[in-house]
Amino acid sequence: MTPTNAGNAVTYRIKIPQTPGSLGAVTNAIGVLQGNIGAIDIIRVEKDAIVRDITVNTGSDEHAANISDAISSIEGISLLHTSDRTFLMHLGGKIEVTGKISLKTRDELSMAYTPGVARVCSAIHEDPAKAFSLTIKRNTVAIVSDGSAVLGLGNIGPEAAMPVMEGKAMLFKEFAGVDAFPICLNTQDADEIVNIVKNLEPTFGGVNLEDIAAPLCFDIERRLKKETKIPIFHDDQHGTAVVMTAALINALKLVNKKAEDLKVTVIGVGAAGTACTQMMQELGVKNIIGIDRKGIVHKGRDDLNEEKRAYAEMSNPENLSGDLSVAMKGSDLLIGTSGPGLVTVDHLKMMAKDPIVFAMANPTPEIMPEDAYPHVAVMATGRSDYPNQINNVLCFPGIFRGALDCQATDINESMKMAAAKAIASVIPEDTIQPDYVIPSVFDRKVSPAVARAVTLAAVESGLARRKPSSNT
Amino acid sequence: MTPTNAGNAVTYRIKIPQTPGSLGAVTNAIGVLQGNIGAIDIIRVEKDAIVRDITVNTGSDEHAANISDAISSIEGISLLHTSDRTFLMHLGGKIEVTGKISLKTRDELSMAYTPGVARVCSAIHEDPAKAFSLTIKRNTVAIVSDGSAVLGLGNIGPEAAMPVMEGKAMLFKEFAGVDAFPICLNTQDADEIVNIVKNLEPTFGGVNLEDIAAPLCFDIERRLKKETKIPIFHDDQHGTAVVMTAALINALKLVNKKAEDLKVTVIGVGAAGTACTQMMQELGVKNIIGIDRKGIVHKGRDDLNEEKRAYAEMSNPENLSGDLSVAMKGSDLLIGTSGPGLVTVDHLKMMAKDPIVFAMANPTPEIMPEDAYPHVAVMATGRSDYPNQINNVLCFPGIFRGALDCQATDINESMKMAAAKAIASVIPEDTIQPDYVIPSVFDRKVSPAVARAVTLAAVESGLARRKPSSNT
Repeated sequence: MTPTNAGNAVTYRIKIPQTPGSLGAVTNAIGVLQGNIGAIDIIRVEKDAIVRDITVNTGSDEHAANISDAISSIEGISLLHTSDRTFLMHLGGKIEVTGKISLKTRDELSMAYTPGVARVCSAIHEDPAKAFSLTIKRNTVAIVSDGSAVLGLGNIGPEAAMPVMEGKAMLFKEFAGVDAFPICLNTQDADEIVNIVKNLEPTFGGVNLEDIAAPLCFDIERRLKKETKIPIFHDDQHGTAVVMTAALINALKLVNKKAEDLKVTVIGVGAAGTACTQMMQELGVKNIIGIDRKGIVHKGRDDLNEEKRAYAEMSNPENLSGDLSVAMKGSDLLIGTSGPGLVTVDHLKMMAKDPIVFAMANPTPEIMPEDAYPHVAVMATGRSDYPNQINNVLCFPGIFRGALDCQATDINESMKMAAAKAIASVIPEDTIQPDYVIPSVFDRKVSPAVARAVTLAAVESGLARRKPSSNT
Repeated sequence: MTPTNAGNAVTYRIKIPQTPGSLGAVTNAIGVLQGNIGAIDIIRVEKDAIVRDITVNTGSDEHAANISDAISSIEGISLLHTSDRTFLMHLGGKIEVTGKISLKTRDELSMAYTPGVARVCSAIHEDPAKAFSLTIKRNTVAIVSDGSAVLGLGNIGPEAAMPVMEGKAMLFKEFAGVDAFPICLNTQDADEIVNIVKNLEPTFGGVNLEDIAAPLCFDIERRLKKETKIPIFHDDQHGTAVVMTAALINALKLVNKKAEDLKVTVIGVGAAGTACTQMMQELGVKNIIGIDRKGIVHKGRDDLNEEKRAYAEMSNPENLSGDLSVAMKGSDLLIGTSGPGLVTVDHLKMMAKDPIVFAMANPTPEIMPEDAYPHVAVMATGRSDYPNQINNVLCFPGIFRGALDCQATDINESMKMAAAKAIASVIPEDTIQPDYVIPSVFDRKVSPAVARAVTLAAVESGLARRKPSSNT
């Protein structure tokens, strides 16, 4: 069974008779089904009964329904109402747009709007660079998606992608003070997406591309980087690669292996898998084998698109062919950016000594941690409810904070590697543990460390339009 | 001289000797130049001097500079620093994007982001209509501009238009709780703008087109209304027309004239002028004469574009030709949506008894109120620093609030007229005055009244996807 988590929290409103043992019967029924009880609140006290809200972390909608049934079948107990806390949290959306200053008086209106605003407009018209100081461009990022590859859910379209982009906007603000706004587009045509994003450039200081499927995402990112003067960053590719690289830097210290000596299997060579491969190569890894739906990616295959042909060229030096098992033999590291449950315990047993497994498929990893733990030295996933979460939130807020602070025109390889090293360095070397190779997403030291490193790398690369003062 | 206003407020930081009369010399110098002194603050006290901030409303940059010079030339006084309060207010932009809920714990992250968010995405994927309840679409409007006709400043481009759009977003939130986000586009091509806005539809519940020049704005609005299922509203056209109509409804009561009997001159037949003309005709006005840069718009002119030919067809029943003076003779009402200072006192003297003048050019009206007052029965402008401000803020927050509340698919003529009547009705009939034909922009009764009327009209027109409960 999937472990319970707050993402599947359900509140059961239950009318319980005021007789000894009644509440116990309910909590017992929930416990038998392995529901994880959180808060128990009294809603009201009636003549012979108490109405309570019992909040339970469940493992799935089915699990929650089973618990409902179990509660309903207890004699004397009425289940009045079931509410899904995650859906309640999403009602009306999760972000809002607010003014930084109040507009309560005529004077404030005269300054923020007409007639005063006209002078500010004129100043920008005379010197467009002033847009960076006098508009939200200084601190604002577009989160652009076409909904073609959302989490592990696939091509669910732009409307259904919005909750992810809104969540991302919250994370931008929470972790780095960046204002980010979701732009979910009703097109999955690369030319149109490129054209739209180019035309949004006056409004934004950067663009975070998100959940756009491979291979389209490669083309879109490449063209936008060339045709705009603001940072373009496809988080699914580079955010994942940066955080994975940070985790790898620390994991290698733990197992005492060197990047140069690793044999790596990458399962899933889409956006994230390709970027992870490239970043590992920058770190010095030589032997990387990619796996897609049809097995090992090698030069002999005739079913590869342009991107995968390039992948075959730059990877798999022994030119292996076959299925996942062939690649896994003797691998030191497994990178999973594919789908749920594709890796078995038998696969893990084929790996080299002290294997490292980063099973990053969302929301369900390639192999669940409880299954993998006995067979690996280091295990990481993309989930927030397990240790070693390889979560892009460790990267994207700080990397855009750093890029915006120096008005960078791009985010280049050097800035990404600086971000990875900054994330890794937040954990002091002597405190690295198998279940602590990557900082918690709530570690408030991460984002400022990333931002500083990224700004520095941008300045060194000549991509900074502004050199921030040292105390920024 | 332009009257002083807070939009031109300047703070002078001045070091003044601690001798009797020194502060008086400064305030006197400012007063002689008709600077309007607001706050005087002490910043620090030095050995023989006091450093003060004196905030002065000025009339223009030139006026502010003259005051600087005057202060600097006073013996013993040092002007340390001059700061422009409007520019200070705009530093870093005026709006921000914030989360509605906190993300401080792992459980909150599991619900707002992965893994919990995946269930919300799936629910919308199964039923796209749920986007209205589970994403920001329910309450969010795009403010779209190409920067081609910003205030009275003309085609200053998208970067320079941003401060206006940000101000607009603040007003949406302040007056109607609507989340609005500026989208300033790097194109002035109608096809591209239509295509981009269509592709933004999954993100937004409505689109406020803003500061797009005529005649392009007509085409863009017409096509978007046809090709999207969310309300499209060009505020420069319809917001202005709605508020002007509200003011007219009340002004006519004051001068005891009927719409049917009016002779009206409209100076400026671009976006706003055309929409005002159409709405006056709906109100029953028969005789409207439009004026553009080349004089009266009439069927005999061969220099008219398609939109102006249509205008000539629907207006000017006596087929007058000539300049503004010809039109003004015997006019009961002058609607100005053109540029600064185009109307003279002599023009006003040609009008009928009890003339009404709505001089709405921004930021400087066709004729300044102090010049017009002796010659008119009712005078209104677009400025926040005079009475009777015909400000779109009386319309657009409430009209979108009403449209969003019922998930309207469009904003039609009936909803606009309902909005105009709602605005007018906020002033009880027995309290209408020459300087009070339109409510203050700070009258908190306006926006809810407009929203209710608009929702009702949408439901009656069959454009509402949702019927709000009566207490909404």
